[in-house]
Amino acid sequence: MNIEFWFEFASTYSYPAALRIENYAAELGLGVRWRPFLLGPIFREQGWNDSPFNLYQAKGRYMWRDLERTCQVQRIPFRRPSEFPRNGLLAARVACRFSEAPWIPDFIRAVYRANFEEDSDISSAETVGHCLARSGEDPAAILEEARSPDSKARLRKQWEQAVQLGIFGAPSFLVGRELFWGNDRLEEALRWAVSHET
Amino acid sequence: MNIEFWFEFASTYSYPAALRIENYAAELGLGVRWRPFLLGPIFREQGWNDSPFNLYQAKGRYMWRDLERTCQVQRIPFRRPSEFPRNGLLAARVACRFSEAPWIPDFIRAVYRANFEEDSDISSAETVGHCLARSGEDPAAILEEARSPDSKARLRKQWEQAVQLGIFGAPSFLVGRELFWGNDRLEEALRWAVSHET
Repeated sequence: MNIEFWFEFASTYSYPAALRIENYAAELGLGVRWRPFLLGPIFREQGWNDSPFNLYQAKGRYMWRDLERTCQVQRIPFRRPSEFPRNGLLAARVACRFSEAPWIPDFIRAVYRANFEEDSDISSAETVGHCLARSGEDPAAILEEARSPDSKARLRKQWEQAVQLGIFGAPSFLVGRELFWGNDRLEEALRWAVSHET
Repeated sequence: MNIEFWFEFASTYSYPAALRIENYAAELGLGVRWRPFLLGPIFREQGWNDSPFNLYQAKGRYMWRDLERTCQVQRIPFRRPSEFPRNGLLAARVACRFSEAPWIPDFIRAVYRANFEEDSDISSAETVGHCLARSGEDPAAILEEARSPDSKARLRKQWEQAVQLGIFGAPSFLVGRELFWGNDRLEEALRWAVSHET
């Protein structure tokens, strides 16, 4: 059975989830389907022109402290990005276009580490290229393909699917038709997948 | 050491937290300080004239399903209230005015059960009175006191304190100066209290 992992590269709580999910799933004999999407359009439909963590200050202050604690408990390196949220559009186009490639989990983790461990600007083609190189791929060819009309259309379609599935935030986990939202629901989503396996 | 439990009677995720916290804390040798407050004024300051679960429909649909799953896992009876959110002002005035009384934990749980198990209208003096009677108290005298200017001022002051503490949602747990938000952070807050005990 598979667990679908719906994520956005700018999303803070998607970071620990992205780093943890593959190993946890493998231990339980589950596969991961990587589903990048963009939160920006979903937030704009709710009337937000920025991350709610920036719009609602008390919530934002809490989130940074909570994320720091979470990463400490889950033994994940963390440095607060000097810019938030960063634009993950190009990285998401890569991840969507090549979602089935064997190197894609490494690439996704590399982008998250760039953003939340190394404080690198993941909106730049240079950083995305570095992440591809780290995953053993040739940046130039892949970036060109990621910028093609077909790749752009794929990501747009995936965003529409997210909305249809009732997804409103990241990370989200989908097991069959059951939706779980938040890094703190990863274990519950995996348990659900195991106990509802057919 | 104590854990402060900041809650709002209308808040859905405060329900399983309210039913679980006292036993869990007692097992660890911790006391609970009951801190009712109102989310309404905090939401209004953020520009919301209703619960965000009503304003943002995808989030609301998810919350009801997630709460149902949570209550099932935590073995807590749950019936979705026919009205949401219900006004918990009178119950909060009682809980704030008598927060140190030995019957207050029973009263608080009775109000939550009325709202989320029995689908009763907790905004009515009748229901609040029933909850007081169930906790072994005389409703008339306590309701009169809860409506006094002094009781009203106490709850207002407690709401101001919540804002100063950076509280933006319910349930919230405060351990020393460390804030935790959400029923799913109860265990972490208790662990924090135990490991930072002096």
